[in-house]
Amino acid sequence: MTKLSIDEELQFILRGVVDVHVEAELRAKLEKSRATGAPLRIKLGCDPSAPDLHLGHTVVLSKLRQFQELGHHVIFLIGDFTARIGDPTGKSETRKPLDDDAVASNAKTYTEQVFKLLDRERTEVVYNSTWMSELGAAGLIQLAAKSTVARMLERDDFKKRFHEERAISIHEFLYPLVQAYDSVALRADVELGGTDQLFNLLMGRQLQRDYGQPSQIVLTMPLLEGIDANLVNGKIVGAKMSKSLGNYVGISDPPGEIYGKLMSVSDALMWRYFELLSSKSAEQIDALRQGHPMDAKHALAFELCACYQGEEAARNAQEAWKAQFSRREIPDELAEHRLALGDNGRLWIAHALVRSGLAASSSEARRLVKSGAVKKDGEVVQNDSEELEAGNYVFKVGKRGWGRLILE
Amino acid sequence: MTKLSIDEELQFILRGVVDVHVEAELRAKLEKSRATGAPLRIKLGCDPSAPDLHLGHTVVLSKLRQFQELGHHVIFLIGDFTARIGDPTGKSETRKPLDDDAVASNAKTYTEQVFKLLDRERTEVVYNSTWMSELGAAGLIQLAAKSTVARMLERDDFKKRFHEERAISIHEFLYPLVQAYDSVALRADVELGGTDQLFNLLMGRQLQRDYGQPSQIVLTMPLLEGIDANLVNGKIVGAKMSKSLGNYVGISDPPGEIYGKLMSVSDALMWRYFELLSSKSAEQIDALRQGHPMDAKHALAFELCACYQGEEAARNAQEAWKAQFSRREIPDELAEHRLALGDNGRLWIAHALVRSGLAASSSEARRLVKSGAVKKDGEVVQNDSEELEAGNYVFKVGKRGWGRLILE
Repeated sequence: MTKLSIDEELQFILRGVVDVHVEAELRAKLEKSRATGAPLRIKLGCDPSAPDLHLGHTVVLSKLRQFQELGHHVIFLIGDFTARIGDPTGKSETRKPLDDDAVASNAKTYTEQVFKLLDRERTEVVYNSTWMSELGAAGLIQLAAKSTVARMLERDDFKKRFHEERAISIHEFLYPLVQAYDSVALRADVELGGTDQLFNLLMGRQLQRDYGQPSQIVLTMPLLEGIDANLVNGKIVGAKMSKSLGNYVGISDPPGEIYGKLMSVSDALMWRYFELLSSKSAEQIDALRQGHPMDAKHALAFELCACYQGEEAARNAQEAWKAQFSRREIPDELAEHRLALGDNGRLWIAHALVRSGLAASSSEARRLVKSGAVKKDGEVVQNDSEELEAGNYVFKVGKRGWGRLILE
Repeated sequence: MTKLSIDEELQFILRGVVDVHVEAELRAKLEKSRATGAPLRIKLGCDPSAPDLHLGHTVVLSKLRQFQELGHHVIFLIGDFTARIGDPTGKSETRKPLDDDAVASNAKTYTEQVFKLLDRERTEVVYNSTWMSELGAAGLIQLAAKSTVARMLERDDFKKRFHEERAISIHEFLYPLVQAYDSVALRADVELGGTDQLFNLLMGRQLQRDYGQPSQIVLTMPLLEGIDANLVNGKIVGAKMSKSLGNYVGISDPPGEIYGKLMSVSDALMWRYFELLSSKSAEQIDALRQGHPMDAKHALAFELCACYQGEEAARNAQEAWKAQFSRREIPDELAEHRLALGDNGRLWIAHALVRSGLAASSSEARRLVKSGAVKKDGEVVQNDSEELEAGNYVFKVGKRGWGRLILE
């Protein structure tokens, strides 16, 4: 068990959390856990799809790992029961029914990645078919009696579809109940999920009460912004991390790629990633804030790279990155230039170079770009019409020198 | 098989029917049945409650018997699966879960009464737990995917409750699907039910299509009016037959009571009962229409009494009735008096007697009643303030004589 005080443990658990139902109950559970020596039972459910996990997926897993580090009992639930059914209406591409082999193979792919974060020896992996197959049609009807049509239609996506007169199949009302019943079967103390899962997680709270159990604590984690997100008016603004947008860091990516992508994020986003992805304590993160942002960024890139690819790979990636970008090239002290974006939220690269003193005129700037003399974040700029978006860029212009351009 | 033509068979089947989906398909099924020699499979489902059946319940059973008489295969389904679950929300008094013993005992009580109409040897009795228990939670979810929330909310009672913001539990959406699945499991060609069952029966049509079966024909029968119903403006108006209203004829009532109650109904209601309860052909009923209504009423009372209590009991009941009311007392030819009701839909008994010439004045009428000299339908009238409702009454007033009073 942890040596933290209850207050510290609570603060650590709530770091980065969006919804908590209910904090006072969570505190009481933590206190009881200490008094009895019985760790809390922390549930996270997943579909047995076979994704390539990226950092966006690890926000919730990281929270689960924190619970594990605090000494609690972590249950990783694979929702194979509903996966074997899929979406019987055939409307959903992502809900094709899976056979036993596919479930087993997907679960293996999934857990192999998950166990890069979680301690395999201390993680209970369960399949909900274990209890759902025994429930039978009669049990499912009894389960269905525990909620109402009106309650289901409170869920945002159902409400929207209902009002837009798009079909909602009856079985879609059963899946949240199945998920909630998993919490009953597991006697979960805490369930984690993304913010989009809030409704389903709260259903678990209610159902446990109906079954005479103490209600689980519900914690939701935010969706993670992609590596291209930026600070705008004090807020991080940007698309969620996703493979299709290309703004992701895959946990199975080569170490150099993980390291490099993380080094490229803006300072503000770095602190966000610390909050949501790092195992470091609040004190350790505060200490990093006192130092140079570049050092903090190295610490983040190293931690996450080591987590997924091992310490040695992370060290090598760090060496390689420094060899390429920092030691040989980027000066320790970079001149910083804060530049205002145009009305369209962009700034022509030629204007950026002129305003930061890296070119004497727009025409010289264009000539320098055309001659291949301008590097942005280590890469030669190809297009002299390029318009820069908000962000933090390191420019090198021929022999003229270096500059950090912060476009806001 | 029947010797009727297809047209005649169709006409016989559709007698008294409220909804038919779809007549052309029914005709095609009848034709195919004749061509192949395979009887149609006719389904009627019931809850394994233990009611004392009255004639209201027998409207649908009578239609089922007609199919049996036409040579089709009759399946009497006992819905024990859902009965064992009951209403898990505990909101419904009538949906208490039943254990195996209660189901068996209720089914016995039910079928004992049902087999007074149906030919036991040629009736297949089935329990839906046979296939529903095997379906499992997974099968039920697949079943639930076959319909939508919007579709369910088209059902009148659900629609009403939804708009009045009264709770509808999710399991209530599953029961119509279970009932519909019974039709799939039984490969029903025709399903019968009351008009209140139309939605559920149509669900069976749709579900069979989804499962690649030809859709069943849906026939609904009306709710039967109680014995106190009357003809108003050419329409039979009155409460539905029910035990709580006391306007019923129980099929297990003593023969004399069945006979007497049926003899007491108005002529218009008698023809309605012929339509819905009798096994007589259209020709036989037409023939009765040509004769005296009293003879027709005897024929109806005899047929139904014989059906439920045996021919001998019916003969005895007829003898007893005639001994009490007709031979000794009621003249063959009764003077008929048609009287208009007052604005309140009633007529004071004294006025009725005066207007029909059975009393000289209201005060004499009251005196006659007080002296016990006035009999209405064989019973001494006790209350000289009595207000008569619409109906057909046989009055005897002291030595003055007889009269049939028709109040409209």
